[in-house]
Amino acid sequence: MKALRYFGARDIQYGTTDDAVLQDDRDVLVRVKHCAICGSDLHIYHGHGFSEDRGFCVGHEAVGEVVETGRAVRTLKSGDRVMISAAVGCGACPGCLMGRVHECENNGSGCYGLSAALQGSQAEAVRVPAGDVNARRIPEGISDEQALMLTDALPTSWMAVRNADIKPGASVAVVGLGPIGLMAVEGCFAMGAGRVYAIDLVPERRAIAEGLGAVGVDPGEAVAFIREDTKGRMCSSVVEAVGADATIDLSLRLVGKWGTVSCLGVNQTRRFPFPMERAFASGLTFRTGTCSVPHWWQELIPMVQKGQLKPERYISHRLPLSQGAEAYAILDRREALKVVMTPE
Amino acid sequence: MKALRYFGARDIQYGTTDDAVLQDDRDVLVRVKHCAICGSDLHIYHGHGFSEDRGFCVGHEAVGEVVETGRAVRTLKSGDRVMISAAVGCGACPGCLMGRVHECENNGSGCYGLSAALQGSQAEAVRVPAGDVNARRIPEGISDEQALMLTDALPTSWMAVRNADIKPGASVAVVGLGPIGLMAVEGCFAMGAGRVYAIDLVPERRAIAEGLGAVGVDPGEAVAFIREDTKGRMCSSVVEAVGADATIDLSLRLVGKWGTVSCLGVNQTRRFPFPMERAFASGLTFRTGTCSVPHWWQELIPMVQKGQLKPERYISHRLPLSQGAEAYAILDRREALKVVMTPE
Amino acid sequence: MKALRYFGARDIQYGTTDDAVLQDDRDVLVRVKHCAICGSDLHIYHGHGFSEDRGFCVGHEAVGEVVETGRAVRTLKSGDRVMISAAVGCGACPGCLMGRVHECENNGSGCYGLSAALQGSQAEAVRVPAGDVNARRIPEGISDEQALMLTDALPTSWMAVRNADIKPGASVAVVGLGPIGLMAVEGCFAMGAGRVYAIDLVPERRAIAEGLGAVGVDPGEAVAFIREDTKGRMCSSVVEAVGADATIDLSLRLVGKWGTVSCLGVNQTRRFPFPMERAFASGLTFRTGTCSVPHWWQELIPMVQKGQLKPERYISHRLPLSQGAEAYAILDRREALKVVMTPE
Amino acid sequence: MKALRYFGARDIQYGTTDDAVLQDDRDVLVRVKHCAICGSDLHIYHGHGFSEDRGFCVGHEAVGEVVETGRAVRTLKSGDRVMISAAVGCGACPGCLMGRVHECENNGSGCYGLSAALQGSQAEAVRVPAGDVNARRIPEGISDEQALMLTDALPTSWMAVRNADIKPGASVAVVGLGPIGLMAVEGCFAMGAGRVYAIDLVPERRAIAEGLGAVGVDPGEAVAFIREDTKGRMCSSVVEAVGADATIDLSLRLVGKWGTVSCLGVNQTRRFPFPMERAFASGLTFRTGTCSVPHWWQELIPMVQKGQLKPERYISHRLPLSQGAEAYAILDRREALKVVMTPE
Repeated sequence: MKALRYFGARDIQYGTTDDAVLQDDRDVLVRVKHCAICGSDLHIYHGHGFSEDRGFCVGHEAVGEVVETGRAVRTLKSGDRVMISAAVGCGACPGCLMGRVHECENNGSGCYGLSAALQGSQAEAVRVPAGDVNARRIPEGISDEQALMLTDALPTSWMAVRNADIKPGASVAVVGLGPIGLMAVEGCFAMGAGRVYAIDLVPERRAIAEGLGAVGVDPGEAVAFIREDTKGRMCSSVVEAVGADATIDLSLRLVGKWGTVSCLGVNQTRRFPFPMERAFASGLTFRTGTCSVPHWWQELIPMVQKGQLKPERYISHRLPLSQGAEAYAILDRREALKVVMTPE
Repeated sequence: MKALRYFGARDIQYGTTDDAVLQDDRDVLVRVKHCAICGSDLHIYHGHGFSEDRGFCVGHEAVGEVVETGRAVRTLKSGDRVMISAAVGCGACPGCLMGRVHECENNGSGCYGLSAALQGSQAEAVRVPAGDVNARRIPEGISDEQALMLTDALPTSWMAVRNADIKPGASVAVVGLGPIGLMAVEGCFAMGAGRVYAIDLVPERRAIAEGLGAVGVDPGEAVAFIREDTKGRMCSSVVEAVGADATIDLSLRLVGKWGTVSCLGVNQTRRFPFPMERAFASGLTFRTGTCSVPHWWQELIPMVQKGQLKPERYISHRLPLSQGAEAYAILDRREALKVVMTPE
Repeated sequence: MKALRYFGARDIQYGTTDDAVLQDDRDVLVRVKHCAICGSDLHIYHGHGFSEDRGFCVGHEAVGEVVETGRAVRTLKSGDRVMISAAVGCGACPGCLMGRVHECENNGSGCYGLSAALQGSQAEAVRVPAGDVNARRIPEGISDEQALMLTDALPTSWMAVRNADIKPGASVAVVGLGPIGLMAVEGCFAMGAGRVYAIDLVPERRAIAEGLGAVGVDPGEAVAFIREDTKGRMCSSVVEAVGADATIDLSLRLVGKWGTVSCLGVNQTRRFPFPMERAFASGLTFRTGTCSVPHWWQELIPMVQKGQLKPERYISHRLPLSQGAEAYAILDRREALKVVMTPE
Repeated sequence: MKALRYFGARDIQYGTTDDAVLQDDRDVLVRVKHCAICGSDLHIYHGHGFSEDRGFCVGHEAVGEVVETGRAVRTLKSGDRVMISAAVGCGACPGCLMGRVHECENNGSGCYGLSAALQGSQAEAVRVPAGDVNARRIPEGISDEQALMLTDALPTSWMAVRNADIKPGASVAVVGLGPIGLMAVEGCFAMGAGRVYAIDLVPERRAIAEGLGAVGVDPGEAVAFIREDTKGRMCSSVVEAVGADATIDLSLRLVGKWGTVSCLGVNQTRRFPFPMERAFASGLTFRTGTCSVPHWWQELIPMVQKGQLKPERYISHRLPLSQGAEAYAILDRREALKVVMTPE
């Protein structure tokens, strides 16, 4: 089959690889209809991946059609339109049985497209382990592109919003306005935020956030502007949607007394200089973590069905899978929000 | 001073009565600028009041200017624009000290305008006991009319919304579209409701709710319509904003499995026929109670300041206090939403 | 196989019936090691069952050993010691996939032993539908008898405790001291209750509750005693563990301002006379519903493993299954707490 | 009057100073009956105080009798036995009016005994600003020594327990077994913890914790021991009760996936090396902050009255105030848990 594969830093190639096949009774084989590039795929692209493997298929956001199921699969059958959770659980431990993939006790598999251990879904087809838990039939009223956003980006954004202890009427900041940050702006308003400061270096992204009702702010001016605008109270909740040390540090400067900073971006710093004195004096709650995708579907599916969240509008580019190398380059140059690719 | 006074069923008269004066070190005397008629004032108007007294001043929703303070008052001074909480606490028990007037251990005073014990505020002036707790300087950015809505109607509406366990994306019903019900529609959306069914017999009121984004439904069709529209799931939250047996009963038919019915209307039925079998089978939470006004100011003031809630738009009539008798009659004929009166 | 079967009011007989067999790929066949009689089985015994069927196997509390599995079963295999959830979900809808059997969208099967549709487990063997969801391997450190209490009685008790909004230090009442009520006493203390009033007509049951640290109270004296003991505040939480109109009514008299009444007992009254006036004046939360057994295992298993809850101590009788008719009679005469039966 | 005063590092002297007097209508003058030394007083003792002042009275934990009240004081009168909150609010801002001194908008006064701005209470008398908010009549059933523990140490401990997201049955660690840590051990059990690992270098302190039901662990062995004992899951909640970098670091190693670390100790590190990579991978919640004493009285008073928490048992030394210099030295040598002093 055709797929995008990793061969080294900035070397992702479209080419032929072994067909995806079932390996277990509980597996599901999905013919990919659309797949997308996640911000964290750029870590791999930059050569900061999680494995020394070469030649594996990349990508972990995809929707498609079931073409084959293991005999132990209960909830899916051939022909079903499905969305595939980026987070992969074993499907058989107590955590997975409660729909909390992030509490999976055997989460060796982890995620697609990080190594040869679990091939990625930027491909014509992908094997989904424990299909009953790790994929879901796309519900009525959800388009393919909405479903694609539900495989990773929207749940990650929403988890961070839910982790931010947003109170009705609150002043909230979102730091970083990629697709996840922009969806967080939407999410903060859905949770009752009274004012959302949308912070990014790129004016065009701030303009999109302003179209959602937020107040766009340049990072360099954020502390002073928000201090003034909140009369010194600062924000009661901050959603950090980048994962860089600088943006986490900024988030910790924007939060007011007894407030919460909720981080969603991948950060691999082992000794982040944390302002403990300030945290103690102001009474901080700090949260970070990865997203248990299926857990959030329950809440998000109705919100997308009813038009409260419109994740599809952050798709800026649609390309054939064969142009995947270019797609990565576009995203890397920050010329795109969300790039969707389609196998021909 | 001039005031509206109760002399019997449908007999509320404008006339002269004794001036309001301080009685305690902690009292505050307020010259009333605007006052409003609450739905529960109609109970008194209909002769179903809480006292046999005659001639007392009625009304419990008012804003105005402080003209005198007892020497033990800490937070207010002459000239302050204030809003007066309809709920009155003693100001000195642990409940009041925590801002939870509804947990006041000595709540004999209860509310203005129910009897001669605490004169009402549909008058040129009103004595506010324990002014530090029972009144608040009107915050910057809040108009007099907004503040008037904050004295009772909006907090009552919001309490019921907060009691309704609204989940993001949820289908919610509001039963009864007086000003409190209409504000509840706004409040449900602010809490993340995905769809709000707005139920009232009066088409004009449903039309206002539709203008807020709700789906207007006639009470007679509500069960069938909502069953169809939710594919049998019914509503996960219902706000009951009338207090009649029929509307509580309807609310209990609209709630789905593991849902919540939150009542705010005054109901005095001692043996309400409660569908216990259905409640057990579906897993019901049922809540009712009165509103601790100052407790909710913390959350509501920023929401009104930021324009998330616009309570002033439900004021349909503005009249001089001298036309108070007519104002009650208009409201009684359901020709008005909120009636505001102004002493000349 | 041998089983207890229902033939009419007070006519439960031990005898031979068709062997339990697998009917679906996801079924599990369990050889029953121990089974127990639930208070709700007495409804059937009294002829107030949920079906006109005759001759079906009764009972819904059992533990045993897996002897056969359908080919789509993922988490269990022959030889596994298992506990069987009294609540039965389809195992394939979103609710079941989240471990919330009570939100199962297809819960036709409902429960074992209510009719011929799903044979009961007071038998030598029982077919468990969707075994992955509806049964669980008994965790290390849990005895068979503890596991048996985890199939229904303990989760039901715990759900009601969790629904009761118990605050640390609170005064709480438990109405009804069968095994579920006694476990609720334990549960209330585990949740931080400061005082637990344990209410039952039977002095021996009150004595057991007193051994757990509660204050035993006769129902006839409960209102006066608790008013005195709480200085008029009454209880902030009440757990109702019977399901009769009289005990629900009593519970509603024991709750104080802004308190919660949590009911767990089966009640089939269609027009229960609910004290709405009092509920409104005091600010009541009322909850009732059935128990989603597997959902609570996550929390309860560690509590039993660590000895915080000791459900096995409420087993008062152990009999061979062949004496099942007598076992029902003993329980009906209130001579027993929990009766456990063992197929020979 | 006689008092303990600060004159430099390790130089606290008992001597005569100006009498405490009322300065404001809302002040209350309290004759001190008992006062105690807090762990944070040792910061001052070590010369790491918050001011360059010399000669000011130290201490912020005291109970006594009201001897004079400003004319605007509502809730206290001469002769009342009172406990004095260590946290001081202005008493007139919205935060203070809601009983949330930690949200006081004007918290210049901060705390007693940190500088000459607000004289400490290790003295024969102390001026309490805004007495209605910052002191409380000692409730019936609370001894003087219990009340003394309620002025700071117990609420601080309890706040940290409540911030730790303790789930029923959970495995929890408490790091540091001074009086606050030992009370945290009690508090964790009151909140339903299934196992509490009590960690301190001092074997005697571990032995006290074991007497409360905890498992004593030496800090050097804590990571390995808890990993083994929890089968790799580690703790879902950790309460850090020291404030040192090393103990915060240890706490962050003891927490398991999706767990919470709650810190209560004063920490003044500006660039604490925070393990962000680990926090992200495991899904951490981290909380720290100071305690709003009166806010917690509502919950703690019934717990102490009912004997759920017994804070008085951590008082190890009782000395006359005149021996205050020696009292500090004893505490500094870690020979004491809580030292109580009494003016003669």
